[in-house]
Amino acid sequence: MDRMPHVEFRTSPPDYKHWRLDTDGPVATLTMDVDERGGLVPGYELKLNSYDLGVDIELYDAVQRLRFERPEVKAVMITSGKEKIFCAGANIRMLAASSHPWKVNFCKFTNETRNGIEDATANSGQFYLAALNGTASGGGYELALACDQILLIDDRSSVVSLPELPLLGVLPGTGGLTRVVDKRHVRRDLADYFSTKSEGIGGKKAAAWKLVDEIVPRVRWEEVISERSRDFASAATRLPGGSGIELTTLDKERTADSIAYEHVTAVLDRDREVAEIIVRGPEPDAPASMDGVYSRGAAFWPLAVARELDDLILDLRTNEIEIGTWTFETQGSADRVLGYDKLLLANYDSDWLAREIVLYTKRTLKRLDVTSRSLIALIKPGSCFAGSLLELALAADRSYMLTGVFEEEDREADPAAITVGPMNLGPLPMGNGLTRLATRFLGDPDALTGAEKAAGQRLEADEAEQLGLVTFAPDDIDWDEEVRIAVEERASFSPDALSGLEANYRFAGPETIETKIFGRLTAWQNWIFYRPNASGPDGALRAYGTGKRADFDRKRV
Amino acid sequence: MDRMPHVEFRTSPPDYKHWRLDTDGPVATLTMDVDERGGLVPGYELKLNSYDLGVDIELYDAVQRLRFERPEVKAVMITSGKEKIFCAGANIRMLAASSHPWKVNFCKFTNETRNGIEDATANSGQFYLAALNGTASGGGYELALACDQILLIDDRSSVVSLPELPLLGVLPGTGGLTRVVDKRHVRRDLADYFSTKSEGIGGKKAAAWKLVDEIVPRVRWEEVISERSRDFASAATRLPGGSGIELTTLDKERTADSIAYEHVTAVLDRDREVAEIIVRGPEPDAPASMDGVYSRGAAFWPLAVARELDDLILDLRTNEIEIGTWTFETQGSADRVLGYDKLLLANYDSDWLAREIVLYTKRTLKRLDVTSRSLIALIKPGSCFAGSLLELALAADRSYMLTGVFEEEDREADPAAITVGPMNLGPLPMGNGLTRLATRFLGDPDALTGAEKAAGQRLEADEAEQLGLVTFAPDDIDWDEEVRIAVEERASFSPDALSGLEANYRFAGPETIETKIFGRLTAWQNWIFYRPNASGPDGALRAYGTGKRADFDRKRV
Repeated sequence: MDRMPHVEFRTSPPDYKHWRLDTDGPVATLTMDVDERGGLVPGYELKLNSYDLGVDIELYDAVQRLRFERPEVKAVMITSGKEKIFCAGANIRMLAASSHPWKVNFCKFTNETRNGIEDATANSGQFYLAALNGTASGGGYELALACDQILLIDDRSSVVSLPELPLLGVLPGTGGLTRVVDKRHVRRDLADYFSTKSEGIGGKKAAAWKLVDEIVPRVRWEEVISERSRDFASAATRLPGGSGIELTTLDKERTADSIAYEHVTAVLDRDREVAEIIVRGPEPDAPASMDGVYSRGAAFWPLAVARELDDLILDLRTNEIEIGTWTFETQGSADRVLGYDKLLLANYDSDWLAREIVLYTKRTLKRLDVTSRSLIALIKPGSCFAGSLLELALAADRSYMLTGVFEEEDREADPAAITVGPMNLGPLPMGNGLTRLATRFLGDPDALTGAEKAAGQRLEADEAEQLGLVTFAPDDIDWDEEVRIAVEERASFSPDALSGLEANYRFAGPETIETKIFGRLTAWQNWIFYRPNASGPDGALRAYGTGKRADFDRKRV
Repeated sequence: MDRMPHVEFRTSPPDYKHWRLDTDGPVATLTMDVDERGGLVPGYELKLNSYDLGVDIELYDAVQRLRFERPEVKAVMITSGKEKIFCAGANIRMLAASSHPWKVNFCKFTNETRNGIEDATANSGQFYLAALNGTASGGGYELALACDQILLIDDRSSVVSLPELPLLGVLPGTGGLTRVVDKRHVRRDLADYFSTKSEGIGGKKAAAWKLVDEIVPRVRWEEVISERSRDFASAATRLPGGSGIELTTLDKERTADSIAYEHVTAVLDRDREVAEIIVRGPEPDAPASMDGVYSRGAAFWPLAVARELDDLILDLRTNEIEIGTWTFETQGSADRVLGYDKLLLANYDSDWLAREIVLYTKRTLKRLDVTSRSLIALIKPGSCFAGSLLELALAADRSYMLTGVFEEEDREADPAAITVGPMNLGPLPMGNGLTRLATRFLGDPDALTGAEKAAGQRLEADEAEQLGLVTFAPDDIDWDEEVRIAVEERASFSPDALSGLEANYRFAGPETIETKIFGRLTAWQNWIFYRPNASGPDGALRAYGTGKRADFDRKRV
């Protein structure tokens, strides 16, 4: 599997191979019942509810659909359709056969889905509950850790475990270590013991150590989990509003060198190793009220753009790993973008759909923040980097904004302008809990205030540069050269060092469970995955299941 | 250099090859003037004030001596003895020729020294000032970043730079990225540009971007830097007390399989891959006042133990990289340990030496926290895990405490006990800013309060276990077996995965610049250093200076 398969992330429940989604009033049940032979690529069987990227793509789709299509759902129970096993985690043969970039990318996506589950519990009033009707190992337990409550059947055989270190010589790759101590507050020495004990821990000790919230005797299992689900559903407060809207299949045209959606286009320049992404602003003005949003449904511009960007990011990240730089341009009316932002924020506290669209925009931008590609915003006349779309420029590692106009192209054009809007001042925080503006101006409250006070104003290049909102503001004469050099330079640098540099600079300031998972844990995991002790011919990951013992280089690093 | 040289960390100013330490009243000047031919191992020349571990060992010694031997010093200016160059950073040929564990260990030590410089500025009233009388590149600029003020000569040629990414395909390894955005608050997009521009930035732009605090014209250089040093010295408040005490040469007996100091012994069991460390408590009672401390000088037990542990940690980390587990035992009187703690804390706010000893203990324990070895505390009858020595058990990944006594050994012995003391409640925080107790009981305020309330009580095994202060409390019958399995298991696991696991579990809770550097940045750097794009035959690190261009695998991970 050194040559990675082309992966498509669009799916819908009728196409699911591995999950069942059932709803019963305010309670939904997501049942994992993995098709052993339904692996994304040949070469492994997904035994014991183990998963690969294909299984997780369906889970992501289900979580998204629950938010948009099932507003009546207030509690989601994740459980297993198999006997005695909840989930055995990521499939080991798949991992052993995968290339390093595939493994890292797979972990990133699974992490994002689990963060999305926590976001639903925290912000959408859709409370997630893991009902472990059998053993949850490794990634299986990590999936449970993403839920707010974990119930474990007490049958003298079912356990939770993180056997990655003792069995595979790697770390749990999906936030397990961080969530054990930072979310569930398992004591660090007990966590150490737990994570070295391949056979796991069940029963009273699992509850006493806070690894699970409740253990339930087999005879009372069905009764207790439905009782808990109903209780959580009645305690959850989901905002009112209209009925669910269908996430219709995204229109997407994919050629060898381009990806086109209705509002978003990416041209892949393989020679320059750059994807040129253009986001088009809304055509009609925003509707006057949420009624218009419900009637447009998935075609409503902010939702459509979020879905298209989301799919594009996943597609490029997975399928185009040698395209190291993404440039972002926008086209359209800044006022219209701000009009849509205004409508959504006016209803953020009163209408579930308005909130969901903002939360989805937030998650999509966060996906960009953790993407290991250089991001460059190009701000030109005719662009609409305002409010929610300005976040694309603020997420970028650098931005270039044209001073004046392109004389030869359109001498009469209005010069490029950006506008700070309410969307930049709070509703779209990064993983570190700060807005992108606050992260940008970390430790410089005057600059932050200056930028915030300029909200609503059309800022041309000189002003935007003075306020620190763009990196460089070349004029017509210098533009081509400066942008060309920036893109060419990026392609000449070590891709690894760029990933590390960007991951460190993008997340200045405070840390959260999310930034710890993506920043610290991921980096450790990258390193450990890459070392011969895990992935070499005699490494633990490849020795697993062969009967051979891994042969470790014992040097401690 | 796959076989690493044996390194000794003990040194003193008469033996320095690379630094000069001058004092003029309250101002000290540390002049870096690296002996090109004075490298620690053959094979490279330390041109342009580039450094290797040997250079940094002297810097560490100087920083330590300034704290203990020169209490009158309130400002330390770091500058260069060479023309036009402050420091070119870590020597690249040395890095290119070094093994992976050597590079990682080298970076860890240099990081600790730079954190120590910041600790002196923050807590000792010894203010560090970098006087860049020439270009500071890479690790040279990172050394400056550890100082509280950076002055750069404005001569149209001197710059600051982080050329690691563009020239070497790695990251700055000594906290550069973190300090640029999190300490100096350079805007992240400007930081991105700066870190990709190998030729660096000087003059007004360096000051405008906050890369330096002040630029000074060449003609006024000498005048301004001495003015600033004096100003900072008069603003700094260092505690009063007696005159400096000499850090006499540490007595140390090193054989192939043991390291022995006066109070600390380590036996290296190479078959079991374990170092058995024993720390002996103080023999005489603590002196009645600080007078007694000054008269004992470096022989004063808490200082002597801190120095011995410090040297032992460095020795084992550098020279014994296949010894993957360290066990800690203590022997002696808990009451006496608590007596010494009490004396130091009673004078912490009024006497510089009392404070320095506590700060040094804090730094030594922090060194343990970031050590990539499994740490296991063994608490037996006759031990003195109390107060400052209890921190060794709290720093451990696990602790085993005997319930009752060893029947065959000494049936009449007092059972093992531990005692929480004032030293456990604040003065010895971890890098995350919390005490080890607070980190242990993260998110469990009741358990924390319970442990704190037990302060002063002699806690035997059952009580210690109930309070969550020890991991396991086996009795005589189970002890040998449990401890043996714990140590053997550790030696059977992947050393890489253990390093990652421990680094994640030890630092639950909040993050600081320090934990970011050791946790996040270090992990990224480990990975990047290890990848062929840096260290392979065609990697950037090995191509540097050969005229060949690095050949990168362009896949983004």
